[in-house]
Amino acid sequence: MTSKPSTPQVPARAYETVLNSIEADLRAGRIKLGDQLPGERTLAETHGISRASVRDAIRILDAMGVVRTSTGSGPNSGAVVISEPAIGLSATLRLHVASRQLSVEDIVESRILLETWAAESAGRNTDVEHRTRVLHETAELLRAMDAPDLDRGQFHDLDARFHVLLSSLAGNAVIEAMMESLRLSITDYVSDSVASDGSWSKLAETLRAQHHGIHEAVSAGDGSRAAELLREHIQWFYAETQGT
Amino acid sequence: MTSKPSTPQVPARAYETVLNSIEADLRAGRIKLGDQLPGERTLAETHGISRASVRDAIRILDAMGVVRTSTGSGPNSGAVVISEPAIGLSATLRLHVASRQLSVEDIVESRILLETWAAESAGRNTDVEHRTRVLHETAELLRAMDAPDLDRGQFHDLDARFHVLLSSLAGNAVIEAMMESLRLSITDYVSDSVASDGSWSKLAETLRAQHHGIHEAVSAGDGSRAAELLREHIQWFYAETQGT
Repeated sequence: MTSKPSTPQVPARAYETVLNSIEADLRAGRIKLGDQLPGERTLAETHGISRASVRDAIRILDAMGVVRTSTGSGPNSGAVVISEPAIGLSATLRLHVASRQLSVEDIVESRILLETWAAESAGRNTDVEHRTRVLHETAELLRAMDAPDLDRGQFHDLDARFHVLLSSLAGNAVIEAMMESLRLSITDYVSDSVASDGSWSKLAETLRAQHHGIHEAVSAGDGSRAAELLREHIQWFYAETQGT
Repeated sequence: MTSKPSTPQVPARAYETVLNSIEADLRAGRIKLGDQLPGERTLAETHGISRASVRDAIRILDAMGVVRTSTGSGPNSGAVVISEPAIGLSATLRLHVASRQLSVEDIVESRILLETWAAESAGRNTDVEHRTRVLHETAELLRAMDAPDLDRGQFHDLDARFHVLLSSLAGNAVIEAMMESLRLSITDYVSDSVASDGSWSKLAETLRAQHHGIHEAVSAGDGSRAAELLREHIQWFYAETQGT
């Protein structure tokens, strides 16, 4: 019987040895957030692989949002452990959307599933302080988006932060990271499709009104209403930007 | 106002130039699945970067499941465009779970959300031939899992294929890839927690019965029942394997 192994048992590539070992160190707590990884030479000697393979591993960890590498030398150079899951996930999703194995329609449907779930689950957040802070910060973002002289890039950034912050009320970091990555993976497709500034300013007007409605529903603790408005908002936006 | 750019505008690293260019080529259809990427030297000259940076980019694409590189030289060596979104997504998720920025609980909750959605959406699949094939193949997987002499690794592999194949009835490749990646990202945690073979054989007995129940509900076209059984199945399994 042929069967795809569920986990890589024997690394097929030299860099995988380093990835597996760093994963094991993270799991065991031997390396933690903010720590600096051992230098290239140390890692190469520890794993009995070339420095080139160590560099491969570090680059991959960088692309996955697991480490941040700084250029230059000195005591502050080298790879520091961070955690930006959405960066790594969105980079992967973007490329697979580009190769047309994942469709924009499927991404949008997935985004609706995750965001409406987050809205419906926001009610279980019993951390009053967190809830108050999120509602306050999202209100600030709405105010910033209302500025008429805002350019489109700024609007999209604030918009993204509004959605991600609101969904944090559900308290599931995986859903949050996946949601953000889905959004990032199709940003360019959306930007390309709204060509003129004139049509954009009309769109922005509607988006503002929809955002305020969503915020009101969440503030009122009405999760189903918020989920319904989010679904309409996302569907409407993609219908508008995909053209007909 | 500080704002995180929603897309990387100016590549901060040399390898990003290659990633962006390959993404653009994929989007424009200039490169497609099964194609071989240009050689290292060509890519380096095209982008005015070092061959080392090109190698970085290829390794990252490999880790993301976007290309498969073969070792050796000759006409069949080099990077071929593939599409294995779940590979890239799960590699990223695994590392972030390891660094404890994503919790196993959140992963399990996300898996339940995606799988129950897929079960409920399976009914909209109007492709009778696809449906018949999936139901037949999943029945074969159940038969294979019933074999008493199956070892644990084989059981897990068949189990994973059963879940992924069933969820393909919903017809959303993004959900399918995310679902598979969530599963892969916590496989080791589960394996570690079920230590003895004796306790495993008892677990396997229950898993078999649950799988048959899920398959029956899907075959009967009862999406809500299938979703309910899936939720119970996943929650039960993690409760058992997480210990108390």
